[in-house]
Amino acid sequence: MPAFSRLIRFLARNGKVYYGDAILPEGVSNISQTKKARIISGDIFGKHEVTDQVADVRLLLAPLALEDVKTVRCLGLNYALHAKESGLPIPKYPVLFYKPVTSLAGPTDPIPIHPLAQEAPGLDYECELVVVIGKTCSDVSEDEALNYVFGYAIGNDVSHRDWQIQRGGGQWSLGKGFDGWAPYGPGIVSSEIIKDPQTLKISTKLNGQTVQESNTADMIFNVKKTISFLSRGHTLLPGDLIFTGTPSGVGMGRTPKLWMKDGDVVEVELEGVGTCTNKVEFLKDSPKL
Amino acid sequence: MPAFSRLIRFLARNGKVYYGDAILPEGVSNISQTKKARIISGDIFGKHEVTDQVADVRLLLAPLALEDVKTVRCLGLNYALHAKESGLPIPKYPVLFYKPVTSLAGPTDPIPIHPLAQEAPGLDYECELVVVIGKTCSDVSEDEALNYVFGYAIGNDVSHRDWQIQRGGGQWSLGKGFDGWAPYGPGIVSSEIIKDPQTLKISTKLNGQTVQESNTADMIFNVKKTISFLSRGHTLLPGDLIFTGTPSGVGMGRTPKLWMKDGDVVEVELEGVGTCTNKVEFLKDSPKL
Repeated sequence: MPAFSRLIRFLARNGKVYYGDAILPEGVSNISQTKKARIISGDIFGKHEVTDQVADVRLLLAPLALEDVKTVRCLGLNYALHAKESGLPIPKYPVLFYKPVTSLAGPTDPIPIHPLAQEAPGLDYECELVVVIGKTCSDVSEDEALNYVFGYAIGNDVSHRDWQIQRGGGQWSLGKGFDGWAPYGPGIVSSEIIKDPQTLKISTKLNGQTVQESNTADMIFNVKKTISFLSRGHTLLPGDLIFTGTPSGVGMGRTPKLWMKDGDVVEVELEGVGTCTNKVEFLKDSPKL
Repeated sequence: MPAFSRLIRFLARNGKVYYGDAILPEGVSNISQTKKARIISGDIFGKHEVTDQVADVRLLLAPLALEDVKTVRCLGLNYALHAKESGLPIPKYPVLFYKPVTSLAGPTDPIPIHPLAQEAPGLDYECELVVVIGKTCSDVSEDEALNYVFGYAIGNDVSHRDWQIQRGGGQWSLGKGFDGWAPYGPGIVSSEIIKDPQTLKISTKLNGQTVQESNTADMIFNVKKTISFLSRGHTLLPGDLIFTGTPSGVGMGRTPKLWMKDGDVVEVELEGVGTCTNKVEFLKDSPKL
């Protein structure tokens, strides 16, 4: 199991990028407030150690390097009130879709809105508990499922409802996979610290106003059930992420609809983990890497 | 651009696994018949060279190592007759979904059928042209799209229609992502050899009987259009695979339905590339790695 308590990946004052164990001031649990960290050396999903070397944190990055993530799974309709506001029945099985790893971004990165996603209204937010798998597993029982968890983060499953629902032929992928549309972080809290992931307040603020507010206790398929089900006939790998669905309050479920605009600031928060605060940035031209 | 003509990954007589450039007898284009290959050294998507060292090929493996693949994109309903047999309209935009990298398998691997996929009938085959991306790109024009192609393979997008359509809440992922449900290969033919991917015969045989027979000329969104569209606001990475959809003739589209059974042998073929021949293997118990 991981040696860290709160894993972060960060740009240090010296211009280098490190994995680290966040050092938080007494009484603070929001990893976003990290100023210093102990540098972690080695393979984050293999042999690694938290060293005595302390570094100043200049910028928090996506908690895992792109090469350390394999597959991003996501659940839809995993909170009863959200299924209701979406006009869809409570699912009998977890509703699974995927986001590409290129959609992952850091806890303060801007969310780039490609011109294609500006053609019609529909830009929405979704705060979600993110599970990070730590060890290879398949066909895991519910009782053993949490043993394979590396830790937890908060993520935003940014979605464009028109591309997701109208233009994708019924498949949600086109409205959810744009570059940078899965900011997560601000770090990964070890499953040694969060022993029960079903008791955590989860919320979204849009420009400072609370728009989603719930508790992971309200998930239809809890983390144990989700891992057990998704691992049936499917090998889960270290670094796989599971976005576990969003509670009610999304822009699509409101009257009138509430879509994110250029310059909006969206903040998702998970109790005991922290916040991701991302600015919506409408791109004028198609970006090139 | 790649130095190879027909990339394979193989188990050699000495028990080691190599990337290689297939050596085919005069007049043979099916990579499955490869007996010898020139070993490739270096980074397959970076600096690499085809050496003079020739090895005996004992077994062809999935053409890319799992760590060399990032994202597997797939198109649905990309041949007009297949959309019709599925009872769905011709799509206006490519219908996108994903398979996890753990679904990838080699050209002669058995296709494992987990007990979960034996609960109801619906096990189907889908022969597909597979595009391998060779260079990082985004927002690529149709004119430039083929410059980013590494090469082409043939794949089988194995699907369970009940999990795909009935039990997945409308999302296809649950019926398509099982371990080993995306055999592909038998190698990757360089885009220097296949300059036009829209002229290739593509077919499936089930237990020796031809059940799908078409030509990539019939694709609704051809490879250029597909890459250009999928790269809009989405960064494609070296080693990304695109399964470009299947022609008509799938088991779901027949009267009566034709589902694959335990012990069936399914063979998908692409002109100029070769065949993947995989045996369907119903698992008795949940497998452990």
